[in-house]
Amino acid sequence: MTIEKIRELISQMTLEEKASLCSGADFWHTKAVERLGIPAVMVSDGPHGLRKQADEGDHLGINDSIKAVCFPAGCGTAASFNRELIQEMGETLGNECQAEGVSVILGPAVNIKRSPLCGRNFEYYSEDPYVATEMAGALIKGVQSKNVGTSIKHFLANNQETRRMSSSSEVDERTLREIYLAAFEGAVTKQKPWTVMCSYNKINGVYAAENETYLTKVLRNEWGFDGYVMSDWGAVNARVRDLAAGLDLEMPSSAGINDRLIVEAVKNKTIKESIVDRACERILDKVYRYKENRDTKAVFDRENDHEKARKIAQETIVLLKNENILPLDEKDNIVFIGKYAKEPRYQGGGSSHINSFKITSACDAVADMPNVTFAQGFFDYKDELDEKLIEEAVAAAKKAKAAVIFAGLPDAFESEGFDRSHMRMPDCQNELIKRVAIVQPNTVVVLHNGSPVEMPWVNDVKGIVEAYLSGQAVGGACVDILFGKVNPSAKLPETFPLKLEDNPSYLFYIGEKDKVEYREGVFVGYRYYDKKKMDVLFPFGYGLSYTTFTYSNLTISKKNITDKETVKVTVDVINAGSMAGKEVVQLYVSDLESTVIRPVKELREFAKVQPGETKTVVFELGKRAFAYWNTRIHDWHVETGDFRIMIGKSSRDIVCTKDIRVESTVKLPFVYTLDSTIGDIMEDPKAKQYINELMKGSVLFSARSEEDNSAASKAISQEMMMAMMKFMPIRGMISFGNGSVSMEDLLKIVDELNKQE
Amino acid sequence: MTIEKIRELISQMTLEEKASLCSGADFWHTKAVERLGIPAVMVSDGPHGLRKQADEGDHLGINDSIKAVCFPAGCGTAASFNRELIQEMGETLGNECQAEGVSVILGPAVNIKRSPLCGRNFEYYSEDPYVATEMAGALIKGVQSKNVGTSIKHFLANNQETRRMSSSSEVDERTLREIYLAAFEGAVTKQKPWTVMCSYNKINGVYAAENETYLTKVLRNEWGFDGYVMSDWGAVNARVRDLAAGLDLEMPSSAGINDRLIVEAVKNKTIKESIVDRACERILDKVYRYKENRDTKAVFDRENDHEKARKIAQETIVLLKNENILPLDEKDNIVFIGKYAKEPRYQGGGSSHINSFKITSACDAVADMPNVTFAQGFFDYKDELDEKLIEEAVAAAKKAKAAVIFAGLPDAFESEGFDRSHMRMPDCQNELIKRVAIVQPNTVVVLHNGSPVEMPWVNDVKGIVEAYLSGQAVGGACVDILFGKVNPSAKLPETFPLKLEDNPSYLFYIGEKDKVEYREGVFVGYRYYDKKKMDVLFPFGYGLSYTTFTYSNLTISKKNITDKETVKVTVDVINAGSMAGKEVVQLYVSDLESTVIRPVKELREFAKVQPGETKTVVFELGKRAFAYWNTRIHDWHVETGDFRIMIGKSSRDIVCTKDIRVESTVKLPFVYTLDSTIGDIMEDPKAKQYINELMKGSVLFSARSEEDNSAASKAISQEMMMAMMKFMPIRGMISFGNGSVSMEDLLKIVDELNKQE
Repeated sequence: MTIEKIRELISQMTLEEKASLCSGADFWHTKAVERLGIPAVMVSDGPHGLRKQADEGDHLGINDSIKAVCFPAGCGTAASFNRELIQEMGETLGNECQAEGVSVILGPAVNIKRSPLCGRNFEYYSEDPYVATEMAGALIKGVQSKNVGTSIKHFLANNQETRRMSSSSEVDERTLREIYLAAFEGAVTKQKPWTVMCSYNKINGVYAAENETYLTKVLRNEWGFDGYVMSDWGAVNARVRDLAAGLDLEMPSSAGINDRLIVEAVKNKTIKESIVDRACERILDKVYRYKENRDTKAVFDRENDHEKARKIAQETIVLLKNENILPLDEKDNIVFIGKYAKEPRYQGGGSSHINSFKITSACDAVADMPNVTFAQGFFDYKDELDEKLIEEAVAAAKKAKAAVIFAGLPDAFESEGFDRSHMRMPDCQNELIKRVAIVQPNTVVVLHNGSPVEMPWVNDVKGIVEAYLSGQAVGGACVDILFGKVNPSAKLPETFPLKLEDNPSYLFYIGEKDKVEYREGVFVGYRYYDKKKMDVLFPFGYGLSYTTFTYSNLTISKKNITDKETVKVTVDVINAGSMAGKEVVQLYVSDLESTVIRPVKELREFAKVQPGETKTVVFELGKRAFAYWNTRIHDWHVETGDFRIMIGKSSRDIVCTKDIRVESTVKLPFVYTLDSTIGDIMEDPKAKQYINELMKGSVLFSARSEEDNSAASKAISQEMMMAMMKFMPIRGMISFGNGSVSMEDLLKIVDELNKQE
Repeated sequence: MTIEKIRELISQMTLEEKASLCSGADFWHTKAVERLGIPAVMVSDGPHGLRKQADEGDHLGINDSIKAVCFPAGCGTAASFNRELIQEMGETLGNECQAEGVSVILGPAVNIKRSPLCGRNFEYYSEDPYVATEMAGALIKGVQSKNVGTSIKHFLANNQETRRMSSSSEVDERTLREIYLAAFEGAVTKQKPWTVMCSYNKINGVYAAENETYLTKVLRNEWGFDGYVMSDWGAVNARVRDLAAGLDLEMPSSAGINDRLIVEAVKNKTIKESIVDRACERILDKVYRYKENRDTKAVFDRENDHEKARKIAQETIVLLKNENILPLDEKDNIVFIGKYAKEPRYQGGGSSHINSFKITSACDAVADMPNVTFAQGFFDYKDELDEKLIEEAVAAAKKAKAAVIFAGLPDAFESEGFDRSHMRMPDCQNELIKRVAIVQPNTVVVLHNGSPVEMPWVNDVKGIVEAYLSGQAVGGACVDILFGKVNPSAKLPETFPLKLEDNPSYLFYIGEKDKVEYREGVFVGYRYYDKKKMDVLFPFGYGLSYTTFTYSNLTISKKNITDKETVKVTVDVINAGSMAGKEVVQLYVSDLESTVIRPVKELREFAKVQPGETKTVVFELGKRAFAYWNTRIHDWHVETGDFRIMIGKSSRDIVCTKDIRVESTVKLPFVYTLDSTIGDIMEDPKAKQYINELMKGSVLFSARSEEDNSAASKAISQEMMMAMMKFMPIRGMISFGNGSVSMEDLLKIVDELNKQE
């Protein structure tokens, strides 16, 4: 329906009808206006599968959802670093929605993995905003290609579950722009999601739901978002203020309470009726976009989608350690140990939880391999060492050629709603691994978890496979990798620190009552570990393959650019091994000299390729690749200077570099005052003359001779005098000018300097 | 002179005379008003000796000062942890001032050693505010007992030299109170310094010189300071505003310029004349206190004071490592290596620099030991490896029984005015140490530095002695310790991190242009390393002895106290070795459970004792020992709960503990709103009934049965539901109450809850 027709329709609605359209009919539907033929549409939880509530009578969303397919969760899909693959996953989800009559699938969730403790980390992509926004963009592109909407969430700075409905995320402007907004930005500007979901929390004291700065100024005015903003379920804090700020659709229903508040507010002129019209227009635009593009032939082919889930899972599993142990040979006697070999943990708890129609465990996947046996090893409903299970496992391991332990975090550790209190795996599992490794040198650990864990046994085992929470087909995918049917190609989209306390947010994480300070600023994830030169367990971008890739011929199209130009970067990647495989080529940029406090380097591009012999990867970098957010001009800014372009196999394995000079075309505003330092003024060539004139009067700044060996020259060295001068405000000439300078002289100089600007 | 007489005197002064009294006559003197017989007095740099400018004609303070005695700098005196000793040093300085006609000695300097890089660290005491304020208090007590004033400095939050005259230290309220103000607080309230010197920098955007919050509200109204505030030399930014804020005396002279501004401001009623009177009263009170208590018999006995400097230095030298190498035997052939054996580095550059009348080097001190030889080893005017010198040193070391290398930071590394750019020693010295240690297993390093250095050779040598910058008698004191004439008893008043990047301020240190963010908050020094569970090179409070102390019988007088009571803590210390020695008994307090983010533990008391057999040390702890600064009530607050009292030989060597429960007598204000979470409300027993009533209507919060094994129960677990409820604002009942709750119901509940408060 054209926007004109939608407006015409709105003009026929009563105020009450319009207000009612701004909140849900129930837990999952928008309201219909039957009188005008306006249909209701359904939205459903996502984002790694369809959580469509089956029981229409349940208005609280806590009953069973329909049987569906659980794809890998965000933690895993990000590890694929494969945009095309995730786009395909989106297409599949979009098709499922069409088949099931769902207009919007609620996701993707791009919140930054600020701390390993966040209960919802498993749904999120990365500690890096570029990875997050690129993967989200791919999913959105896929889903929306089927004329089904997405709802990128949770906007904004919602990085913990503790007190998430009342806490305020206190984040400085630059950090918001470079990290937390950036995770949304690329996906919103490039893929235009139909909807954005605002989060529960406050940002710097203002609820996301009523935060006009982000909901309207940034999202719409700057990024060109043209869909509707909906609330997270129950995130509306003050309906009228929220509506004015840009929150269009309240979910779920407010039983009419908030609709009435809107009507009253228009009647007593607290808000303009056009604000209500605006929300209706945005909502109806997407309602009709869905309704008018229904794919009535779409079929939810669960078996087919299960196979897709397996294919995706193959690329979400990261090989972390391999001391000549993998791939395994299926002719050998191998024992699979651990509950998760039989009942894999493949998703987290909460709104994203899928009612899987079928689950393939690793044991299922080796049903046709007679040499693979199984031992339970542990239970996970509580953390209690079961000596009998351990002894069984140890005995089985002793007899085998190799042992594979399927371990990880129990369900109760990772869920929406609450955070972890530590980064450890259950003691019973750690103990199992240690005991098995003692008797069986060929031990491999496969991990199922949505966020980093500590690995006290890291040096005791020969192989570690991070399976993340990779959906219902995870067992098949794991077996594909363990036995070399698939060459692992995933990379960690986050740092695994050695211990929880190493995490940059650790000191202030979860905050005090309703105040959560993001004091680490932009130093999230590898940006922190790199700057602090810290050892980590496994670095960002890291992941092994069964083959070897070599890099060569890094070229840049220009050695000097301005911040208005782009530069083309190419690099050759060669598969130097014997097995076919995919590689994630990572491009980082480092600002070599900066007056601004910046990370050592930042990921600015990546590509996943499958080189035959040689593959030339081409990247194009523009201003943003070199820029930081400048809070003086409230814009991206590049400081003139040298930058280093780094190609890495991981953030800690840079294989080739090239330097480039970028020239700024923007002059930052500067106002001179009596407090301006002499050093700052001297940076301006035109200002030098004034300073030299001033200096003449002061004995303080006369040079000492090199031979001067007096006690005085030891007290006040030449270095100290130079520093004193550099750091002195020009008003200092009153104190140190020996009476040679008047206030009028100084004011005149300041005045003339500002005139030059 | 009584305050009445001073007021009478002021009433006879013209406005111009009063204004003129508010700034220096020159670099070192206040102004006289001859007409009324008001004398000028002199102030002189300190604080570890007298830097009295000899040449009266020099108005810039850069010429030679008189020959004097250089005592250990703040870095060293703090390491003594000996209040009586530092008080004695103060008495000596006070006497010197009386002898030389100096009314105020400019110090002590208590700024927190936030980063190892601060150029002026050597003048400062500690990373811990309690140590800083106690040592400063002792010095003030000593000096002022001689009727000479002190000027505790630099007030406030001046923790770097870079851009110190224009930068703003951005520090949150709690951190200012617990760390940066606390360094001044105890000394000001307990020892009443005659003057306080305001720093150059801004605090949260407002220059210290015009910062009424700190100069008047905190310093005078809260802490009862009754002296005068003077500016650091050139710190006045806007004379009239500064005067109104509480900056009484501008130093040095402004050549009349700022005096005239004051006169104009009074005339045009920008400020009241009483403000000028107030400043004059404060200044004259101290001028007359000095003048009327002149000790005309005082003699500056340099030789005598040199011996005192040696005695103090003996307690400022920290034994860091001793693998059965120290004390040395003077009968053995020993080689002293390194320039600093002959020309010790014993003080830093800048305003504190003393023109020593005599220097005792380690070589001087072993003049009567024929078996000790010397090799130069390195030069320090530049960092250049001198192969000839190294080879000489290595050859000499090879022949000796043991080698002692006197190393450290060159003069140019540590000075007022600029900061270090790294934490390393010169490469030529590190190389020398490594090369000597290769040929001589019995190698000891003696360090001369005012702030931590990295020690890449820490495992290569058997002994390490941290001599800090311990004044002109340092050589004698070092030799006393090296050969066991004195048992070392100093402890590190700061953490030595493994590398610069480990420091808590590292990410944001020196800031961006004029903004320096103290993002680490209260986590300065050991408060950070402990919380982050980081390895350090040497921890806070650490230092070895030639004897062994054991601890026993820790007792507390009460197991439960309120925050209005005190508790007596006693512990027995026994010298279990054969050599007499002193021990620093350290008392830390740990808050075992807190809703506030707090350090693991904080130093709350210390005592230096010399036990014969057994010595019982008694401490008394009050509210402050358990409190944190609460920003809601802007006051110290103790949260009811358990605390652990820890007695330690260092911050990382806790030898005994006792737990105590402290009950708060203060009820924090709380206002309920629609945004109050159900969990918070439930904490109030009186509020529970309302919530229970509310809950009845909601199916969401009905308990699931344990046996419920549905997909839905896996999606929304019992834990998640409980967390949802706990963290939900009561307004959430609109969305999740199933229509059972109206806005009016909720508002009524909020209202009644607040009435109860």
